[in-house]
Amino acid sequence: MTTLLALDTATEACSVALLHEGRVLSHYEVIPRLHAQRLLPMIHELLAQAGVGLGALDAIAFGRGPGAFTGVRIAIGVVQGLAFALDRPILPVSNLAVLAQRALREHGALQVAAAIDARMDEVYWGCYQAQDGEMRLAGLEAVLAPEQASLPRGATGDWFAAGTGWGTYASRIAVQPHGVDGGMLPHAEDLLRLATFAWARGEALPADQAQPVYLRDKVATPKAAP
Amino acid sequence: MTTLLALDTATEACSVALLHEGRVLSHYEVIPRLHAQRLLPMIHELLAQAGVGLGALDAIAFGRGPGAFTGVRIAIGVVQGLAFALDRPILPVSNLAVLAQRALREHGALQVAAAIDARMDEVYWGCYQAQDGEMRLAGLEAVLAPEQASLPRGATGDWFAAGTGWGTYASRIAVQPHGVDGGMLPHAEDLLRLATFAWARGEALPADQAQPVYLRDKVATPKAAP
Repeated sequence: MTTLLALDTATEACSVALLHEGRVLSHYEVIPRLHAQRLLPMIHELLAQAGVGLGALDAIAFGRGPGAFTGVRIAIGVVQGLAFALDRPILPVSNLAVLAQRALREHGALQVAAAIDARMDEVYWGCYQAQDGEMRLAGLEAVLAPEQASLPRGATGDWFAAGTGWGTYASRIAVQPHGVDGGMLPHAEDLLRLATFAWARGEALPADQAQPVYLRDKVATPKAAP
Repeated sequence: MTTLLALDTATEACSVALLHEGRVLSHYEVIPRLHAQRLLPMIHELLAQAGVGLGALDAIAFGRGPGAFTGVRIAIGVVQGLAFALDRPILPVSNLAVLAQRALREHGALQVAAAIDARMDEVYWGCYQAQDGEMRLAGLEAVLAPEQASLPRGATGDWFAAGTGWGTYASRIAVQPHGVDGGMLPHAEDLLRLATFAWARGEALPADQAQPVYLRDKVATPKAAP
């Protein structure tokens, strides 16, 4: 049976989840700025709780963005190191898709407009529809002004609104959702679920192909950078 | 005999070095923006060249800054993942000290004023003196305006100037060096040398204690960060 580790540090939340012998364990904390310190101990505790060593992992899944520049970097670095040392492949997962999958799990939403606050008066935006329990992207992920956000062409029925982009900018988004969770952050449990589908389809990649997805063409260089 | 891996991505240079059976192998490339893609393949090639597996490593050393925000993050993430997966300790090394150590190796400099261009009209600054082949910090590392850079109290004799801080701001630094290499970047070979001393002193740390050193109190959040 498949053993997968999932981790996410792309937003204020830091979370890890493990699939092992058909069971899912997870741990989730909202700890801005402490991701780099807490991530390894959280993985360690989760594996210990499951009585599993790292060698049992078949692959490692992670949130590849869009999200916070530093957070996405932390996850990718740690995943690269882990996967390389263990000689296991990786499964990059969209953080917008993770939000949609969480909305399916917690709210039963079958159509989700996911939005993450991208600062600078913009949101990361993606629309997802459930197919056999998996939230699939309809259209494209984008970074845009809240006023430019729209449902995919031909969209009908109820859409659920998930994510901090809604929390900050709901009044400026023209889409009318039938329900909103504007504080929702990505959870590794849902990331793990998406990764399980990807794994079954053979979509795992070598460790050195872990790439961040920022959506913005230009990510400003932080001021500390020479 | 000790086997140590050293890696550095804190500046435009990306480099790796390996100490194994008393021999040192290294690889060094100046590849701005490609560190995340090239680091793992470079490690892989170096280990293959030495005929060594990751399991043979006793510890992993890395440049902990000061330097480019993203670069320092990449190194720390990968090192955390590697060290955690291998259950080995880490050896964080100052990138200013690495410059000083390189100046000792390449120029025979026994006293080095190391400066890295920190942008925003500032330099990362540190003064080092050789003790038994190891460059040791005299005073403190700091980030400051070029005009504020000075030698440690009571400094005498010749000082060598190393690093991009000198390349960009030499005319604004009041210190008069007897030689300058204003294009010098940190090299993992020198990082490895410093790490070997630290290892012998028992200064290795657990993987989750890998922390970046930016010197600036406030590192601006990149614009992609929510």
